Amino acid sequence: MAMNMAATHAVNRKLVDPIFEANAACKAAIQNFGADKVTNATIGTVLDDEGKLSVLPTVEKVFRSMSMVDFMSYAPISGRADFIESVKKQIPCEGYMGAVATSGGTGAIHHAVANYAERGEKVLTSDWFWGTYNIICKETGKTLETFKMFDDDYKNFNLENFSAKVEEILAAQNSLLIIINTPAHNPTGYSLSDGEWDKVLEILKNSANGGKKINLLVDVAYIDFSGDKKTAWSFMKKFNNLPENLFVMISVSMSKSYTLYGQRCGALVAISSSKEIIDEFNDTNKYSSRAVWSNINHGAQVLFTKINGDEKLSAELEQDQKVLREMVNARADIFVKEAENCGLQIVPYKGGFFIAVPAENPAAVCKKLHDDLIFAVPLKLGVRFAACSTPLQKISGVATKIKAAVDAVK
Amino acid sequence: MAMNMAATHAVNRKLVDPIFEANAACKAAIQNFGADKVTNATIGTVLDDEGKLSVLPTVEKVFRSMSMVDFMSYAPISGRADFIESVKKQIPCEGYMGAVATSGGTGAIHHAVANYAERGEKVLTSDWFWGTYNIICKETGKTLETFKMFDDDYKNFNLENFSAKVEEILAAQNSLLIIINTPAHNPTGYSLSDGEWDKVLEILKNSANGGKKINLLVDVAYIDFSGDKKTAWSFMKKFNNLPENLFVMISVSMSKSYTLYGQRCGALVAISSSKEIIDEFNDTNKYSSRAVWSNINHGAQVLFTKINGDEKLSAELEQDQKVLREMVNARADIFVKEAENCGLQIVPYKGGFFIAVPAENPAAVCKKLHDDLIFAVPLKLGVRFAACSTPLQKISGVATKIKAAVDAVK
Repeated sequence: MAMNMAATHAVNRKLVDPIFEANAACKAAIQNFGADKVTNATIGTVLDDEGKLSVLPTVEKVFRSMSMVDFMSYAPISGRADFIESVKKQIPCEGYMGAVATSGGTGAIHHAVANYAERGEKVLTSDWFWGTYNIICKETGKTLETFKMFDDDYKNFNLENFSAKVEEILAAQNSLLIIINTPAHNPTGYSLSDGEWDKVLEILKNSANGGKKINLLVDVAYIDFSGDKKTAWSFMKKFNNLPENLFVMISVSMSKSYTLYGQRCGALVAISSSKEIIDEFNDTNKYSSRAVWSNINHGAQVLFTKINGDEKLSAELEQDQKVLREMVNARADIFVKEAENCGLQIVPYKGGFFIAVPAENPAAVCKKLHDDLIFAVPLKLGVRFAACSTPLQKISGVATKIKAAVDAVK
Repeated sequence: MAMNMAATHAVNRKLVDPIFEANAACKAAIQNFGADKVTNATIGTVLDDEGKLSVLPTVEKVFRSMSMVDFMSYAPISGRADFIESVKKQIPCEGYMGAVATSGGTGAIHHAVANYAERGEKVLTSDWFWGTYNIICKETGKTLETFKMFDDDYKNFNLENFSAKVEEILAAQNSLLIIINTPAHNPTGYSLSDGEWDKVLEILKNSANGGKKINLLVDVAYIDFSGDKKTAWSFMKKFNNLPENLFVMISVSMSKSYTLYGQRCGALVAISSSKEIIDEFNDTNKYSSRAVWSNINHGAQVLFTKINGDEKLSAELEQDQKVLREMVNARADIFVKEAENCGLQIVPYKGGFFIAVPAENPAAVCKKLHDDLIFAVPLKLGVRFAACSTPLQKISGVATKIKAAVDAVK
């Protein structure tokens, strides 16, 4: 008889990882045909055109200048006070703000889902979504529900379906956590326009008017790949002066913006017109931090504070980020233009690591692409192509081959 | 009307941190009287006799030799394969083993509690315990129950009460997670003897005979401060060939053994005679890792692997650890001898960071000690004195002053 020692809620939990599988197939192809012949569009980090991990020079310089005490001593549970202040300063909002250091963007999303959705209830996000949202919901005893992200011709954010789903869930729940990943959404590269943001907030304000509790988590993990600091972060001003029962949290990550993926540092930030709600946020999340990871990588916090506390270093960092952003954009541009020319339907790409191709049988499309030694990740609604990690010289021709693969498996 | 936005289960969660409070009082005293006059015995890291954070030279050397890719690239969700192998190699057990990288020792304990105890049920540990166990239980929906750790004259581990509590809880539950922190227990410095370990396992085997599921988590965060590798880790051989329904997990931490506190790396290791149970362990904990922190500090894993994969470096590390251990032991020796001479009752100290003094009103004792400019941490059952962070030259006289304070508040 098979035996389980894990608790009933934890039994039969197994990660299915399509990225890992795609990567394994790709590695086998590299072994057989050589790296030059193979296009690995599965990886979620920025690689340069030689295939090496890109590390921002300013980050490397500051990292290498730091003392052992910076790296090795404990940070406070919620994060260093100067790190927290520095993180909040980046958010162009007024009113009360709170923040807690987290294990990258994932940790921030974990805390929001753990503490701002009722057990057994629904959390809402778009139907194109980063699979980890679902894992976090299951781990914390919630269910992930989705709205249709785009209208039928993949032109605009589907406000109608968004609104309908919010109302539908709120008919059965007293509170609702909604996760919106923008700008430079993973896996599509979409960004909500200013006008779309206004409508989203109008919908949520209307819902909040009924007295129910609406928690909005904005996942901005890829924000610095969508534009420069001044323009990319400015949409957050819309979060000023919202009603108390429309509570906005922002999950920020150092993984992409600082190429600090493996160091595990980010933050969950909150904005409210109520000091009480911010106090609750700080207390609740500090408690969770104490329970799940104790404290967050001290070195990464010192690095963030050093750079953001120094005008010259901040300017250097922004310049570094621009170089990386333009490298990825140059690759995406080729893909997007070629897709247009060959008639490949893609989700509108506005920036970020990934481009998404809607498909009815994504796994079959990806498998077909193996014939061309192209390796991408099959998602539920389509194929994810990593512009972040595919060298420029390998981009031309890929969209045409994906078009052929999509047509072949129809 | 006061408003909450947090979910019902997360409302009114507030960390009460006696260590932080003691530290704040100490800082005020330093401001008023100068650091030389003040004894800060509140800190849980090893400081040298000048009050500076001790960093192991071998750790610093290897850390400084590592590449940016080592630090910045993502590690796999469960941990680097070579890290996992290297962690398992340290455990002198046979049979099947599993392991997952965690955010220090805390993260390992979190995963064990999250996945190996039923929601709404009881987890058992000793009545002298690290307060975070309770936070982790509350966060994951469990209740912490305690057994009396010592007999009335503080000589031996209280096997009788341990056994009674195990039986009592198992009368109402089908499974039970037990946390034992040894060797060099926090907050007492106690270590189970070989004979006590044999009896503990005999009690648990008897309970397991009834068919219920017993999960034993051994927290060895302070193990390398209890003796050298060969002797300190050898008790784990007792975990070979246990029945399948007596499942042993070990939480290891790089915080103390590698002075890597702020880097956040450790591991949860499991030992079983069943491959199936180990597979379940690996899958379940990988899932939790994905959900709460995604992956663990890559640099720390590379550092661990580099040192443990190299005989010369391993020998150097052990020598470094010995130096630190002897520095802490020299301080504790003075305290323990003085306690004996002045008749101060302490919990038997065998090694590690802390010495504990039983007291009926620990807060009052600590407050009284402020008159002597001595700052220690009041726990529920007594006063915690940090030998790890108190310079040698400040130890003499402390036990006598604590004795006077204990007598004064009686």
